[in-house]
Amino acid sequence: MKVIHNDLHHLHAAEFEFFRGDKVEAFEKSARADFVLRALQDVKFGEYVERESFPDDVITRVHSARYLNFIRGAHAEYLSLGGKGDAFPSVWSIRGMRSDVEPKNFAARMGLYSFDSGTPLTPGAYAGSRAGADCALTGAKLVAQGERSAFVLTRPPGHHAGSDFFGGYCFLNNAAIAAQYLRDYGASRVAILDVDYHHGNGTQEIFYARDDVFFASIHADPSTDYPFFLGYADEEGEGAGRGFNLNLPLAQGASPESWFAALEVAIAKTRVFKPDALVVSLGVDTYEGDPISHFKLRTREDYPRLGEMIAAMKVPTLFILEGGYAVKEIGDNVVSTLTGFESK
Amino acid sequence: MKVIHNDLHHLHAAEFEFFRGDKVEAFEKSARADFVLRALQDVKFGEYVERESFPDDVITRVHSARYLNFIRGAHAEYLSLGGKGDAFPSVWSIRGMRSDVEPKNFAARMGLYSFDSGTPLTPGAYAGSRAGADCALTGAKLVAQGERSAFVLTRPPGHHAGSDFFGGYCFLNNAAIAAQYLRDYGASRVAILDVDYHHGNGTQEIFYARDDVFFASIHADPSTDYPFFLGYADEEGEGAGRGFNLNLPLAQGASPESWFAALEVAIAKTRVFKPDALVVSLGVDTYEGDPISHFKLRTREDYPRLGEMIAAMKVPTLFILEGGYAVKEIGDNVVSTLTGFESK
Repeated sequence: MKVIHNDLHHLHAAEFEFFRGDKVEAFEKSARADFVLRALQDVKFGEYVERESFPDDVITRVHSARYLNFIRGAHAEYLSLGGKGDAFPSVWSIRGMRSDVEPKNFAARMGLYSFDSGTPLTPGAYAGSRAGADCALTGAKLVAQGERSAFVLTRPPGHHAGSDFFGGYCFLNNAAIAAQYLRDYGASRVAILDVDYHHGNGTQEIFYARDDVFFASIHADPSTDYPFFLGYADEEGEGAGRGFNLNLPLAQGASPESWFAALEVAIAKTRVFKPDALVVSLGVDTYEGDPISHFKLRTREDYPRLGEMIAAMKVPTLFILEGGYAVKEIGDNVVSTLTGFESK
Repeated sequence: MKVIHNDLHHLHAAEFEFFRGDKVEAFEKSARADFVLRALQDVKFGEYVERESFPDDVITRVHSARYLNFIRGAHAEYLSLGGKGDAFPSVWSIRGMRSDVEPKNFAARMGLYSFDSGTPLTPGAYAGSRAGADCALTGAKLVAQGERSAFVLTRPPGHHAGSDFFGGYCFLNNAAIAAQYLRDYGASRVAILDVDYHHGNGTQEIFYARDDVFFASIHADPSTDYPFFLGYADEEGEGAGRGFNLNLPLAQGASPESWFAALEVAIAKTRVFKPDALVVSLGVDTYEGDPISHFKLRTREDYPRLGEMIAAMKVPTLFILEGGYAVKEIGDNVVSTLTGFESK
């Protein structure tokens, strides 16, 4: 399998994050990607392909230009205003408020383009994320050109980032950017399978009204788990996109059996859609030992099976790393999934 | 003038607040109301009337029942979950996200019902605010029964609180609750004049589609000042309420002359509306010495004139204290306004 490693991911390194109001050590840290890289190398998995650079107009097929402009310059602007360290938003545009006007105030724009207070905008958040998007696009290009599969080893993750907002550690939605690239370069229908513990609210938001990108997600019930305000089973898409969004929320503590039962449903519906390409938002925070999640997948028993079931769909597949916060085990869980896929 | 003092305001006393990401001493503190009380007593202003208790169904004419239920129990729930000190929200339901479903998760409900991260939900936030709403209702009842005017000396302020959200130090919208009471007990048309430095986004949101309550506000340009996402001049109301919302934003540093020119416009339009009663959201953070605001009104020259101009409308008037963070001067600025009113 081709592997595209984000060589610039370490540019984004948070000092700390806010978790439910407390200042804590960042869960989304550089070591995550480093452990995955080491685990791949330990078993000599994959052929490495260099990150290619893509122009901004590929990104703005998914993200709004004003959002991209903002996050590109945000941390420098923060410093120029006397800010120190990482930047955090403090006020949000909720229901009934406006998002059509972009305020002049920096704190206001931070809030306009985000939905939580726990995602640190570091000095290198944009550079690291933009390189990650290039990795996702490099992988998408390989798949568009006929590769059976590729794996994008990147962080920060992407699936919580929407068309014009960051949050949940995510700034650019790698999976959505890749799916759009596949659509623009040959695939008539693209499916996105999101197996991260958390709902991929950003990805859903981006494709919610479209019938050419099918989004299926297995995740923790949003009533109890982040991102809380999206990911319920009754969200089926809107307009032309009605029927092209599938949420399969599960209760905290759901067994591997229930998880795979949901995966069977997601795969069956994805098959009906007949995608020309598949993007997998591969979060492994479904792992039994994850520090902030509550599913129970096991390294040896379950992740290989996940890979095998995806392979059985026989669709060109692009895996993109999302969450997974049990840092020491994240590598093994990713390798287990990818080797499971390759075994079929 | 009748004065209703919130004897329980000190139940809400924040340890600190977050201001643009920094943990700072709370601006909205108990001393604010204490200084106003002392300044009134120093000049022997007003006849004190005791706070009367009103049932919740008066409050839910303005706030949603689920919001009221939430904030009533929120801090106790926070403690029961192991929380310490004041509670702060951390994740919000922005555009495209859902607010129809109330999540089970406490942090999620904190975010669902708020729009900033800087408003501390203290152990006594609800009790202090609920007593404040009773004070506002006591004042409204006096005006409904024929008083020419009354002053509600309360904190925390209210005008940023919407039908189902807190923020900007506000939990219950005293001005909106009082205006609705006046509508329900005799007044056909009620005007709300908001002279606080910050736009009264909560009050606007509550009455935006109604033609029986006219809302006029003079405030700092939302593009540069809190609450940022509402308060622009083109917000004129919607549906039946079209034409019944008037925003007069001014640039930071606006002179007293420009401020009074805007007040002339607000008063002229309010006269056309022919209100049976007037509620004044009396923020004195328009003061030249305010630590977080940027207008230039002066204690002796400007606040008496404000009071006189309101009196000249000859409408029964209920003053309700909103912002004002120059603690030592807040009392003099309020007294200047109210004595100006009484002089006419």
